Parts: sequence; C-alpha cells; structure tokens
Amino acid sequence: MFELELHASHGAARAGILHTPHGAIATPVFAPVGTQATVKAVQPRELRELGAMLILSNTYHLYIRPGDALIRDLGGLHRFMGWDGPILTDSGGFQVFSLGDLRQVDDDGVTFRSHLDGSQHRFTPEKSVQIQHNLGSDIIMAFDECPPPLDRQTVQAACKRTTLWARRCAEEHLRSGDPSRQALFGIVQGGVFHDLRAKSAQEITALDLPGYAIGGLAVGETKAQMHATLESTLPLLPADRPRYLMGVGSPEDLVNGVARGIDIFDCVLPTRVARNGSALTRRGRINMRNLEHASDAAPLEAGCQCYACQHFSRAYIRHLVKAGEILAHQLLTLHNLHLLLTLMREMRAAIVDGAFSAYAAEFLRQYRPAGKETDAPSAA
Amino acid sequence: MFELELHASHGAARAGILHTPHGAIATPVFAPVGTQATVKAVQPRELRELGAMLILSNTYHLYIRPGDALIRDLGGLHRFMGWDGPILTDSGGFQVFSLGDLRQVDDDGVTFRSHLDGSQHRFTPEKSVQIQHNLGSDIIMAFDECPPPLDRQTVQAACKRTTLWARRCAEEHLRSGDPSRQALFGIVQGGVFHDLRAKSAQEITALDLPGYAIGGLAVGETKAQMHATLESTLPLLPADRPRYLMGVGSPEDLVNGVARGIDIFDCVLPTRVARNGSALTRRGRINMRNLEHASDAAPLEAGCQCYACQHFSRAYIRHLVKAGEILAHQLLTLHNLHLLLTLMREMRAAIVDGAFSAYAAEFLRQYRPAGKETDAPSAA
Repeated sequence: MFELELHASHGAARAGILHTPHGAIATPVFAPVGTQATVKAVQPRELRELGAMLILSNTYHLYIRPGDALIRDLGGLHRFMGWDGPILTDSGGFQVFSLGDLRQVDDDGVTFRSHLDGSQHRFTPEKSVQIQHNLGSDIIMAFDECPPPLDRQTVQAACKRTTLWARRCAEEHLRSGDPSRQALFGIVQGGVFHDLRAKSAQEITALDLPGYAIGGLAVGETKAQMHATLESTLPLLPADRPRYLMGVGSPEDLVNGVARGIDIFDCVLPTRVARNGSALTRRGRINMRNLEHASDAAPLEAGCQCYACQHFSRAYIRHLVKAGEILAHQLLTLHNLHLLLTLMREMRAAIVDGAFSAYAAEFLRQYRPAGKETDAPSAA
Repeated sequence: MFELELHASHGAARAGILHTPHGAIATPVFAPVGTQATVKAVQPRELRELGAMLILSNTYHLYIRPGDALIRDLGGLHRFMGWDGPILTDSGGFQVFSLGDLRQVDDDGVTFRSHLDGSQHRFTPEKSVQIQHNLGSDIIMAFDECPPPLDRQTVQAACKRTTLWARRCAEEHLRSGDPSRQALFGIVQGGVFHDLRAKSAQEITALDLPGYAIGGLAVGETKAQMHATLESTLPLLPADRPRYLMGVGSPEDLVNGVARGIDIFDCVLPTRVARNGSALTRRGRINMRNLEHASDAAPLEAGCQCYACQHFSRAYIRHLVKAGEILAHQLLTLHNLHLLLTLMREMRAAIVDGAFSAYAAEFLRQYRPAGKETDAPSAA
C-alpha cells in the first residue's frame, strides 16, 4: 500500500500511480479542497464525474466542527462525507498558525482559541496525528510550523521545530496508528533558503516516510523563488516516493510544478475563485460580473466539455452571479475543477507520450496569469 | 396544444395529461419555483432526474434582471436557463403588489419602483403579456390584483379590476401573441367570499381561456376557509380545463388541493424551507439545526430514494447546515423537491387506481403540519 508506481518521466516531470486503501491515484494529481468535509458547492457524485481522484480536508476545521470523535463514531470521514475515494488531511498546523493573536506556540505544541466560539484548545504533534486517525484519511500529514518564507531566522527556527515534531508524529503514528491503512507524509520547510530546505529535506527524509511534501510556498514569495526552491529541493527527495506541493493550484503553478517533479497538489483556488464569480480558462481568469458577458451566448470556454459549458451561456452565468444565485457557485465550481482536472490528465498523457515539455510550453504561452491575486490556501 | 386529457377521477380528484409545446405534463403536478430563472440550488439535469414536469418562473424578477428583451434575444427562457421542459410564468402582479410603498395602482396598471435600484417602471395587463411573450413560457398568466383575502371591499374592487385586466390580457395575447405556442390562463379572485368567487369565476371563464387559476389563497386565511373556497369555486370552472392553485405547496395543502380537483400547484416552500435548514418528511418538517440530529446516522427520511437520503446521514447534513455549506442547501432542496414530486406521482397513481381517498386519508393521518408557518409564496 502507498507505493508510487512510476510509469513514465519526461525531464523532471513524472507520471505514476499511487496506491491507497480507497483506490489508485493517477499522478500527477490535483486534489480539490473540502475544508469542512465538503468541496464547496459540489456533490461527491459530481467529483467522481469530474474525475477527481483525491480530495483534501482540513483537520483543524473538522476538529472544531463537528469534531473528529463524532466522525470516527459515524464510520470515518469517507463515510461521513459520502466520498469513497482517497482523502488527504492536512495536520491543522497551517490553520492554527493562521489564527494570529488567537494562538501561542511553544516547542511542545500550539495552544489556540477556536475561531468559532473562542474556546481554548491545544494541538501537539501527537494530537494532530490522533485526530487524523479518527478521521481515517488515506494520507495524513505531519504537524509542522509553516513560517513566512522570506525571514531567514523565523524560517530556521520553524525548520528545527518541524523536524522535532515530524519525529514525534512518526512515533505517534507507529504507536497508535495503522501505517498500512494511513500513510504519514513528512513536510519539508525552509522558505526560499536553499540551504535550509536541504537541511530540512535531509532530516525529514531520514524518517523514511511513504511521501514528502514541500510546505511553506505560495505564501508570499515570487514565482521565480518558488521555482528555484522546487528545483533545488526536489532532487533531494527520494525518487520513489510521492512529492506533494501544498496549497498550490493555479493553472500555471500546476504546470510549473509538474515540470519540476511534483506529483500531488491541492488548492482552494478553483473553488474559491468560482464563488467569487470568476471562471478559469486556458487563457486566464475571467470575471463573470463584467458587462461584456451580459448578452454573450457563448459558453465560459469554447470546446470545454463540462456541464456548465455544455448547457449554459456566459450571459446566463453572469445573470446568476449578479443575482447571487447558488447555481452560479455550482456551475463555476464545476467548470473550474473540470479545467484543472483536465489539465492534470493532459499533462499526465503528455508525460507518458514524451511530449510534456511542448505541452507545458504551449499551455503557458496561451495562459495569462491573474494579476496580483494570491493563490494561497485558506486561512482559518 | 394545451388540451387537458383527463384519464381518471376519484371523487373530485383528477388525473390527466396536459399537452404543451415543451412536452406533456402528467397532472396533478407540482411546479418547483425558479424565481430568477433558476430553481435555487438545483441544476436542470437534477430537476429532470427528480421527475419535475413543470417549473414556474417570475415575470417581475426576470423583467427587472436580466430583462425580458435580453432573454428573448438569447432564444427565450427555456434556452436561457437550460430547461427544455414546460415553463409557467406568473404575471408579475403578485410581486408588484407585494412591493407595498414602492407601488401605486390605478385602473390602467401599476407604477412601481424596482426593489434593486429604485428605478421606476409600469406594468399594465398588456405589458405583462408582452413580457411573457418575450420570455416564451408555455403557460402565461393574466395580470391580476391579488388582495388580502379577508377584507370584502378590497376583494370586491380587486375582482372587478382583475376581470377588466384579464380581458385586456386576452386581447393583447390574441393581438401580439401566438396562442398555439403559449396558453394564457385566467385567474379567479374573490378572497374567501363565495359569492365574489362565483362572480369572478363567471366573468373569467367567459373569456374561454385554456386554463384557470385560483389566486389569492394561502395569504392569510385559515385552512378551513381555503378548503371551503376551493369546494365552492372549483365546480364553477369548466371540467375540461386545467385548474391551478397559485402559490400553494405544503404537503398537506397539495393533498387537500388534489382532493378538491386542483391539477397544478407551485410554491417556494420546499426550496425555501431547505435553505432555512429544514427537511420535509411524510411525518412533518424537521429542523436540521436541532441537536438531536448531531450524531444520527439515519437518513433524512427512512426509505426515501433521493440522492441525499441514499448517501448522507442526518449528522452530516446537520453539520453542513451548521457550517453554512452550500451542499446543505443542495441536499435539502433535492430531498424536499423529491418528496413533493413523489407525493404528486403517488396521488396520480392512486387516482388512476381508484384509491385516492384512502391514500389521502393515510397521508394526512401521518403528516403533522408545521405550526404557525405560512406557505405563502415569495414576495418581491
């Protein structure tokens, strides 16, 4: 279980199959985010129809509401949310660190107040792993400290803590978990500092875990810094284990990440952008509130095979957005997820066909990235 | 076109087929409401899957946004909203009368301000019919005055106006419309006063229209008054034309309406109740916010075949409601519509089988109506 079967590579890009207790995942894969045990505005049957093969859910949010013990008692997260495919949960670390004034960090863990009712709670590496045991996700993440990526001293301290906490997570998972049913992935930190990344990679891979993530990117650095960090760090990770770039998911970041050897991505971007009234297309983002779409009978994207594009005009979707209708969220979310999941399938096929670099170059040539928007994942 | 083929009756209850340019409607039928050209939180493919055979949309809302001329230019309401089945539009009368201080009524029509931007507009019987021509709905409604049902003098004046306006609608429809493509239904007013209903019925049926509606009920009278009004009025309508009870749709009202000879209903109740976090069941309404559902692994309703009940627990749906997730609206709406549409199919089968009165008695014996809640349709 949890072996990565590598089928093909092209440059640094890799195509494979990752085996999990809830099915095989064709990699590279993009995981839609279901923060509160639902990918917002999408039904599980629609995720299947879209070809989603992995979804992410958030430990902090589920711990706070409805509670991980309740989910365990109801048969685990898969049954609770009606999704029988693979699930990855984060550790809750990113969310509790995002709580700002509501949390206090020490070397043992983080004490924080719930963003819902102000009640006090404490996460330790052991607690995070135990919660993820209760949730029963296929891939669980080590509890880490995710610092702002540009301040060397903060990053260095966070790396040290991340390593100590990763060891405690690994011990707790062996003690109270079932590694044949849930894979614990380690997280490499280090911001944009290549030497810190190298040290973190060495310490984390020493734990011999079934997969590794790159944390702490897409939170303030430039694209060039992100790419350079991936290029310096990924060769330090074992080639036979899946590599997960956390919280990244704009179309251009997916292509650039795959090109550098990433196998797994997750991001709220496609679903959040949809709820803000925008569509992702192969040429860039379009804001459906704009007057130019008011009488446009064309679909969101010509040639797109998604349900929204097959049945509805831009004029109709703009009307729904302007009128605040739930169907706007539904249709834009379906379309945006369809684009990213199709993009992943196309990249995988291109890798297998030895045509990835041409595919990536052509995609990036057509794609106009969004201006100042950040693709950072949701804070709590 | 627009003939009602009567297949069976049992007591006053009737089962038939109403032919329209967008397909046949098995009656009695319940029409989900798509106020702004979308049945809130439901996709057209799901309406099909649920067995919806007719939907209602609101002339006032579509006139205000996105505009009936735009919808006409984009091929009509069916194409605009991706629903190729029959559509009924109201006249806009109920909504503009609901605007209160924002409207002024005279014998020629109603001047009103948009609830969106305060801009001034005027509806006349002719204008209402012209808008509905632009929308292209299968069944269009005469522009009427819908008064509070208990004040005899107001009701009397409204009846007089409703008759004058119905004549003007009929003339306008003949002049500028295509009665083979769109059926104009007249509306009988008269509040709870049987003599006023009788007079209105006589005047409106004199127009020899393809269908008739009972307006002005479910807006403040008692259930007993509603039933008595239906019992005194329906025998005055021609048996070979469909009879439509406007704005009514709680489960018990559907059963009681069918029992008295109603063929068509519409109501926002199932979709609105869903968005408020409640499920309709055969035993009454349940509020999914209640703590009693927090760890309940059972579906919303045992034995229900809807997507929500087949895949999700009450505990999960309560979690979604508490967390404010869109999927809560989706699942509760699917369930509530499924119940009402199933109820209509069961009543139709019972009429055909000569078993309707036993079916209705058993349903009403089990069903506990909601307390003080009103099932009145949406005001603007």
